[in-house]
Amino acid sequence: MSLPAEFSLIARHFAPLAGDGALGLTDDAAVFMPPAGRALVVTADAMVGGVHFLPGDPARDIARKLLRVNLSDIASMGAVPLCYMLTLSAPRGTPDAWFGDFAAGLALDQAAYGVQLLGGDTTSTPGPLSLSVTMFGHVAPGTAWRRGGARPGDALWVTGVIGQGVLGLRALRGEIADPDGSLAAHYRLPQPRLGLALHGIVSAAMDISDGLLQDAGHMARASGLGLEIELDRVPLSDAGRSAGVDFVASGAAGGDDYELLLAAPEGNSDRLVAAAAEKGVAVTRIGRFVAGAGVRGFSADGREMALGGGGWSHF
Amino acid sequence: MSLPAEFSLIARHFAPLAGDGALGLTDDAAVFMPPAGRALVVTADAMVGGVHFLPGDPARDIARKLLRVNLSDIASMGAVPLCYMLTLSAPRGTPDAWFGDFAAGLALDQAAYGVQLLGGDTTSTPGPLSLSVTMFGHVAPGTAWRRGGARPGDALWVTGVIGQGVLGLRALRGEIADPDGSLAAHYRLPQPRLGLALHGIVSAAMDISDGLLQDAGHMARASGLGLEIELDRVPLSDAGRSAGVDFVASGAAGGDDYELLLAAPEGNSDRLVAAAAEKGVAVTRIGRFVAGAGVRGFSADGREMALGGGGWSHF
Repeated sequence: MSLPAEFSLIARHFAPLAGDGALGLTDDAAVFMPPAGRALVVTADAMVGGVHFLPGDPARDIARKLLRVNLSDIASMGAVPLCYMLTLSAPRGTPDAWFGDFAAGLALDQAAYGVQLLGGDTTSTPGPLSLSVTMFGHVAPGTAWRRGGARPGDALWVTGVIGQGVLGLRALRGEIADPDGSLAAHYRLPQPRLGLALHGIVSAAMDISDGLLQDAGHMARASGLGLEIELDRVPLSDAGRSAGVDFVASGAAGGDDYELLLAAPEGNSDRLVAAAAEKGVAVTRIGRFVAGAGVRGFSADGREMALGGGGWSHF
Repeated sequence: MSLPAEFSLIARHFAPLAGDGALGLTDDAAVFMPPAGRALVVTADAMVGGVHFLPGDPARDIARKLLRVNLSDIASMGAVPLCYMLTLSAPRGTPDAWFGDFAAGLALDQAAYGVQLLGGDTTSTPGPLSLSVTMFGHVAPGTAWRRGGARPGDALWVTGVIGQGVLGLRALRGEIADPDGSLAAHYRLPQPRLGLALHGIVSAAMDISDGLLQDAGHMARASGLGLEIELDRVPLSDAGRSAGVDFVASGAAGGDDYELLLAAPEGNSDRLVAAAAEKGVAVTRIGRFVAGAGVRGFSADGREMALGGGGWSHF
């Protein structure tokens, strides 16, 4: 019997991406020895056509975004990425060239981030393209960054600039200008903040996937603290600045930033800035944790500002 | 800010299922120490509404089938199941009660098979319900069963009976009778063949998910051998027998069996049967591996029979 198309597709496009332990993607499961003496960090993110990416997005970029949103979770735990499992449900009739482009995108970011394909599953679907990755990283036992480690008085920091993901989505929809394409690029290809040498410097961390205010709220809640954010300090791009403070305060900065929120004692500020700079990453102090509960926003002149309840929910 | 519905849903239905390392499903990733000195076995299977289960199937059964098809892959490597990651993409408006039933199904099979939820992701989808599980097991290094380990002269064995999955699907479609509901039950709730003490007895193994002939062909190919199957020996249920030999030879026995194909030297036959019986599992010798390539089928009187190329492909 010749092999059905499904197996030929796997052999042609995905087997070349397979790493140690993947057994050439021909067995029922992968087998691998976890790095000795290390804790495994494991995250899973799904992406669905029309929800997490636009129907016309290039297959190559979809593949890279899929890896990057998962790598961002590995980064937010302070872990080193290792390998991943992929499930892909595609409409029947998806052209072979689409799979080729998708695999080419995986190959690019496998090389960029040092990860390998461990295994997975391909199926058909009567619905839109539906993707899921389980990403593995590793970390010294007991040293993974958590959301709930902030202490009263700790400063809240954020990497990069905020709001680029949602601005990119608006640009791709033709709602705002994007002369150099940088907004669209951020939406399609976020930058996971891997490799920051912040162990012993930060007390808590998470990545921003659902919007700055919502995610900062998660961090405060997990830490059993309140949080005061100086809204004017939130780092924005020119496009973000033109949208003004309300852009942040309303919660409308939305998701898809994939920047890191970091908590650190005030005394660690210089080390934090230096360690981020070593990786070419700007960090900005935007607030501080306080006893109590809830997130409050303040303007530059100390006036409290109403915060919207925005942020992404699927249900 | 109050939590959006998505987080409330996770806290209510999925957090109670979370095991050690899941960090209460509130962090960006799970952190767990792999069992010391053991190799990890990792598999991922996706399931899509209208493809892998019927739109009207009970949420509880969908959840259990999702775990079981993944556990079957763990079983086929001779591994001990450990924990799993879940991604779930559901249509907006999916009732809360559906998630409750789905979680109840997960809880039932978590208890039955000794696995725990490690983490995951829930998203919305404009398409049908789309699910993915990455399942972890462990095994002594170097002892995982592979597809490619069969040697010339090894016997081919199969657990249980064949064709129940596709017969169950036909029954649920009203195409064949199913007076006691056992066919439908097999389609909805396959039995992963975990825990068979066959290390040192079998030379190769895999589970049957795409159909006996196709999967046996994979095993022969991976082993660099040919395979002769005695078609009359293939164990069938009454319903399967009424479909006759062609039911097997045509390849139409289809997928969703989740029985194990096992290769073993002839001298290990008694030990194999005894080890399977300890777990209440019937095993049947249905063929043997030979030098060469390809799968050939024979009748009880030694006549070669044409084999169909059937078996499931998604593309």
